[in-house]
Amino acid sequence: MTPRGFRFSAVNAGVKAPDVKSLDLGLIYAESPFVLSGMFTRNIVKAAPVIIAMEQAKRGSARAIIANSGNANACTGATGLADARSVMQAVAKELDIRPDEVVPMSTGTIGVYLPTERIVHKVPELVQKLSDDPEPFARCIMTTDTTLKVSRRRVGQACILGIAKGAGMIAPDMATTLAIVLTDAVMDKDTLDKVLKGVVAHTFNAISIDGDMSTNDTILACASSQVDADPEEFAYAFDEVVTELAHMIVKDGEGATKFVTVKVMGCANDRDARLIARAVADSLLVKTALFGADPNWGRIVAAVGYAGVNIDPDRISVRIQGLDVVTSGVQDRSFREEDLKEALQQHDITIEITVGGGMGRFTVWTTDLSHKYIEINASYRT
Amino acid sequence: MTPRGFRFSAVNAGVKAPDVKSLDLGLIYAESPFVLSGMFTRNIVKAAPVIIAMEQAKRGSARAIIANSGNANACTGATGLADARSVMQAVAKELDIRPDEVVPMSTGTIGVYLPTERIVHKVPELVQKLSDDPEPFARCIMTTDTTLKVSRRRVGQACILGIAKGAGMIAPDMATTLAIVLTDAVMDKDTLDKVLKGVVAHTFNAISIDGDMSTNDTILACASSQVDADPEEFAYAFDEVVTELAHMIVKDGEGATKFVTVKVMGCANDRDARLIARAVADSLLVKTALFGADPNWGRIVAAVGYAGVNIDPDRISVRIQGLDVVTSGVQDRSFREEDLKEALQQHDITIEITVGGGMGRFTVWTTDLSHKYIEINASYRT
Repeated sequence: MTPRGFRFSAVNAGVKAPDVKSLDLGLIYAESPFVLSGMFTRNIVKAAPVIIAMEQAKRGSARAIIANSGNANACTGATGLADARSVMQAVAKELDIRPDEVVPMSTGTIGVYLPTERIVHKVPELVQKLSDDPEPFARCIMTTDTTLKVSRRRVGQACILGIAKGAGMIAPDMATTLAIVLTDAVMDKDTLDKVLKGVVAHTFNAISIDGDMSTNDTILACASSQVDADPEEFAYAFDEVVTELAHMIVKDGEGATKFVTVKVMGCANDRDARLIARAVADSLLVKTALFGADPNWGRIVAAVGYAGVNIDPDRISVRIQGLDVVTSGVQDRSFREEDLKEALQQHDITIEITVGGGMGRFTVWTTDLSHKYIEINASYRT
Repeated sequence: MTPRGFRFSAVNAGVKAPDVKSLDLGLIYAESPFVLSGMFTRNIVKAAPVIIAMEQAKRGSARAIIANSGNANACTGATGLADARSVMQAVAKELDIRPDEVVPMSTGTIGVYLPTERIVHKVPELVQKLSDDPEPFARCIMTTDTTLKVSRRRVGQACILGIAKGAGMIAPDMATTLAIVLTDAVMDKDTLDKVLKGVVAHTFNAISIDGDMSTNDTILACASSQVDADPEEFAYAFDEVVTELAHMIVKDGEGATKFVTVKVMGCANDRDARLIARAVADSLLVKTALFGADPNWGRIVAAVGYAGVNIDPDRISVRIQGLDVVTSGVQDRSFREEDLKEALQQHDITIEITVGGGMGRFTVWTTDLSHKYIEINASYRT
């Protein structure tokens, strides 16, 4: 079940180094122009491909996506922009389309110039290999990912296919994902923009692994517009695909041993709820306690308190795995350390925080913080 | 060299549990009222002793400080306040002073009620043991600290003694310290307030280990006002004492293997510089790279970019250990990965970041993030 009109391929181009032999260069090609929407990192330091793709998404139409792992092409200045354009040009020439119809995406180490020659050299092979199977493409954008991230839904006769990468450096305000959602449903630019924006707010902008925000975060939505689909059903299925990708990313978080849902309720507004949920999800002390199944709920309340939201500390309540832990700011009468410790042994943990009687609410998904995270990140580059 | 007018003692009161036999209850007593200034956590969730001490610091005078480790008396509601007051009352009775002249301080696990009886029972022994030696007191407030934190300076005939605890949960906006600075210099309340506030801004509010902000952070300044001291010399020495304590806390950061100085310059104002320095110092990816001596400078630039400060990414320059790493937003021509990797082997690391031509600057001190941090914090409570 792959959206009509799109074809895929991937090769090894030795992007990171000539002797690294995994798939690291991928292409998606559409026989006719597709409608393009995109959302991008809010980091002021934007990678070259992000700067270019933002313009393309604004224009709203493209024919191909060229993606690489192993090199972020970020902090590479004018050279980085020229490098990205050289690659776009090579792809355009081979496909007989315009260079500005080729959307670039990169992920990997920051600050190293793209090995343009090695990449350009592989473009003919890439085009030759185009097929209906998206898996090699999904594989070529993986960095520290340990699982393939692909999600599909059917909407009547149309379908939606989501592909993502991202395992570390995942922060609210968009994960370090390269994510691409393809559909053959008929979509105009405005509708696609609206659907993407609405969904990202409570999916990719609601996940957090380490609080860092990448220079390359990008999510693209591409519609080949070949089959009619009910707009409501489409939005619902699109939401499901992106939510699933976001959860896959959290579950594959570097060194993660837990999948943690932090629900905050009772705030004056959703923004306040979001600030609190993020403070709790990003707290190293909360994360390490979860890793150790340590029933140290005080760390959760402390994080609620420094989130920068004006609340009444005597109205904070916390439930963990359905257990009443904190009620009206103090330990619940029913609390037993052993119960919570046992509940925290599970892989999926839900923390529910209520801070008052307001209607504002927000949910963030995150992980614990383990030894493995340190291991992976103490030696990513070298 | 101990400030005239202050006496010290410490005992074991089994605060954490009756069978934990380390020093965990301490007293500082002054024969006549001392001038009191204080700065406290900005966490909305404030421990009972913080709520009480804030009032006392506003009044500006006291006679004694009673401190315990093993229990934070935080998230304990009205019971926590009553418990703190019971302890203050017991101390006051034994010393024949007013209860509101006894300043309470607590550190330890959140959400557990104070074992008031065990503490009150030990107060007579505490008073009996009062001596000129501050070391037992400095020892009794330690939690995960591995080093005693005491600093002294002479100012003419007067002197300043600083005592602190704090090793984890150290965030900007005040470390989880209980810190006490005692002096016999003649000081009025306004001057002492001003000196304390000025110094904390670039010391305790400029250190960061894990970005968490405690419910109990407190720094007190106490002047017995017995000897005249030159105001400028006093302020300078006070600054040195508090700076030394702050650095001791960072160096003893949970699992720290590096002492990292992050200097940010060239901002529009100091506030912007501070936001950037904090973003870099708090980035898990930067911290783990430092732990692994990984020359992954892109993580530093990425953190600069998401600090929430409007800067020109093409003007970012980064020097590490004196090596030019990033110049005008891209890797410096002289950069060699091996050089940086070697420089990062050292224990003391200095990162200098320039983002433009403005006069705003700020320095933050922090640590790396190691396996040891996870170990300590995955099982602090249990």
